[in-house]
Amino acid sequence: MDSMISTTGGHTSSTEGKTITCKAAVAWEAGKQLTLEDIEVAPPKAHEVRIEIYYTGVCHTDAYTLSGKDPEGAFPIVLGHEGAGIVESVGEGVTSVKPGDYVVALYTPECKECKFCKSGKTNLCGKIRATQGRGVMPDGTSRFKCRGKDLLHFMGTSTFSQYTVVADISVVAITKDAPMDRTCLLGCGITTGYGAAVETAKVEEGSTVAVFGAGCVGLSVVQGAVQRKAGKIIVVDLNPSKKEWAEKFGATDFVNPGELKNQSIVEKLIEMTDGGCDYTFDCTGNVGVMRAALEACHKGWGQSIVIGVAAAGQEISTRPFQLVTGRVWKGCAFGGIKGRTQLPDLVDDYMKGKLKVDEFITHRKHLQDINQAFDVMKQGDCIRCVVTMRDA
Amino acid sequence: MDSMISTTGGHTSSTEGKTITCKAAVAWEAGKQLTLEDIEVAPPKAHEVRIEIYYTGVCHTDAYTLSGKDPEGAFPIVLGHEGAGIVESVGEGVTSVKPGDYVVALYTPECKECKFCKSGKTNLCGKIRATQGRGVMPDGTSRFKCRGKDLLHFMGTSTFSQYTVVADISVVAITKDAPMDRTCLLGCGITTGYGAAVETAKVEEGSTVAVFGAGCVGLSVVQGAVQRKAGKIIVVDLNPSKKEWAEKFGATDFVNPGELKNQSIVEKLIEMTDGGCDYTFDCTGNVGVMRAALEACHKGWGQSIVIGVAAAGQEISTRPFQLVTGRVWKGCAFGGIKGRTQLPDLVDDYMKGKLKVDEFITHRKHLQDINQAFDVMKQGDCIRCVVTMRDA
Repeated sequence: MDSMISTTGGHTSSTEGKTITCKAAVAWEAGKQLTLEDIEVAPPKAHEVRIEIYYTGVCHTDAYTLSGKDPEGAFPIVLGHEGAGIVESVGEGVTSVKPGDYVVALYTPECKECKFCKSGKTNLCGKIRATQGRGVMPDGTSRFKCRGKDLLHFMGTSTFSQYTVVADISVVAITKDAPMDRTCLLGCGITTGYGAAVETAKVEEGSTVAVFGAGCVGLSVVQGAVQRKAGKIIVVDLNPSKKEWAEKFGATDFVNPGELKNQSIVEKLIEMTDGGCDYTFDCTGNVGVMRAALEACHKGWGQSIVIGVAAAGQEISTRPFQLVTGRVWKGCAFGGIKGRTQLPDLVDDYMKGKLKVDEFITHRKHLQDINQAFDVMKQGDCIRCVVTMRDA
Repeated sequence: MDSMISTTGGHTSSTEGKTITCKAAVAWEAGKQLTLEDIEVAPPKAHEVRIEIYYTGVCHTDAYTLSGKDPEGAFPIVLGHEGAGIVESVGEGVTSVKPGDYVVALYTPECKECKFCKSGKTNLCGKIRATQGRGVMPDGTSRFKCRGKDLLHFMGTSTFSQYTVVADISVVAITKDAPMDRTCLLGCGITTGYGAAVETAKVEEGSTVAVFGAGCVGLSVVQGAVQRKAGKIIVVDLNPSKKEWAEKFGATDFVNPGELKNQSIVEKLIEMTDGGCDYTFDCTGNVGVMRAALEACHKGWGQSIVIGVAAAGQEISTRPFQLVTGRVWKGCAFGGIKGRTQLPDLVDDYMKGKLKVDEFITHRKHLQDINQAFDVMKQGDCIRCVVTMRDA
């Protein structure tokens, strides 16, 4: 098996223990385009894994950090957090994956040992939080070098490089039968939305659901709600072309707030659902939308789940009466899904036709054209653009 | 039994079907003191119950409405919502209580038939919400008259009158063994706090709890947390004399935010609990405190429950990141307790010594001195003032 992989992937033991020079899209500074560079990727240290990235998605979080609006964003950095590839080599003490494994990188790690992982109440893991936030590996250093300078890691994954190094708790092996140009999308957007519906909200049969924002995350919430047999699934989006997308994924209704006359979106949803929604999801990152999503919930039990990432410094607000009368405001990251424990099951669901993935891919680009992937993402007709890494 | 009660209560059938003239504290206008008046209380119509009120508590909500700050407050009105008494007579179709029953008035009714009551997810009842909010009985009229004018009802209860009329879904019969000068407090404050801990939050054994505000509601949260065997129960109050109160009810720690040096209350609580609290409760009504209560929750699972009623127009706010990283913001009214179904059990718990009630009573007044009850409530040493109604 290993020899077969080596002919297709080129990740033989010949590179093990050595620095690999490969192509990567480097973000040298905020607000500038990415630059294709030859970078040096050091071998994995103890409890680290070096992955040859085959495909990566481009997500709004990458664009947000690149824009410079993220106050915690630092440069130069290798962005990207939605990637699939094959393990090239592993550092000392790594037992969870081995060279040749097909993997998805996990920006939400899972150590299975910390207070968070053991709580049974969250998918957040505390083990490498501090160093991941600072853009370095758990030992405090970087594995990337370019033009003599260290590059920072991004979200513990940095998938905009042909090779990357991640902590062994930040990667999960999945079946080799699953095409990597699809499974990469399970590394963020699809899992985030789907998990929010089935894992965080635990949408119930017959319940009413409203989803604000029909991008990759929002449409994945829709398919989670469909899976849970929700009775009414209302998609809310200002872009009229999203109506077709919403229906394709199983939404029962579509509302364009821009077309409402003398009625707020909250009033409209309350009218459509006889008092409010059982579950609402913000997939926009807009704090005004987050408030509307909460206030469109049914009194007594409606839950609103914040998924979108708001711009720095922005705050959500509402009258406390909304909570005192029984609405619940919560949120989740990566849909509440534990990557190492649960992602293989999601891949299986995809393979069995129970989870749509292919349908999200509207655009494809090559690594050398990755800046175009950022451009198309801003267009209304792009749900996901998958970037091919290997032929750059 | 009836004849015995008639000798003590005076509620013989001689008054049935007739208007009763009795003493009541009338709020003629916002911002003024209450006035002791002779008022006329009409007999109960269909599905209504006339109660002779023996004792009533005075709560901050009464003071809030009287102050004129409540934009929905209207006058003239008979305030009071924390009352116990004996059923004098019932209107047509009433089957749940009968004359002579010892009862507690319920400002949160329970019809057992509406969408809310049947949901199994909330204690809010929708049946008479609109008319109760407008200060009238379900048929849209008042049962109170004074000096030729109709008086409004308050929160469906109006316990500051020797006789009141309530909907039959707004009253529950309890054991005659329980002293009414204590059970009246189960009509609001104690149940609100205790229920928030055991019913809404469902505090778990060993968990960490922070309670902001050590009044009747806050101390009742503490005893709910004690009942659920919480591991750490931290009371937060600016009044240093509340330390003793907190300890009396079973708190393990007391923090006075005013005494913290170079540390916010959020930082202090996170330090004391190794990362944040599992459950926090706002019992102050202050929106700044509500925010601190949320942000003092543990990442990943901490839940903050808003109990206090904020001043009109005030809003809560936070960074959505607080929710995305797993904190949950919720709230409850009347602790999430269904009055008709669950209050008799709380009274039983009190009778068995499992629920403290007597300890809350720091002051007693007579109806003619009810304005003094409002005055003492503003003092730090008053937890609850019980007003005796019958000897005015």
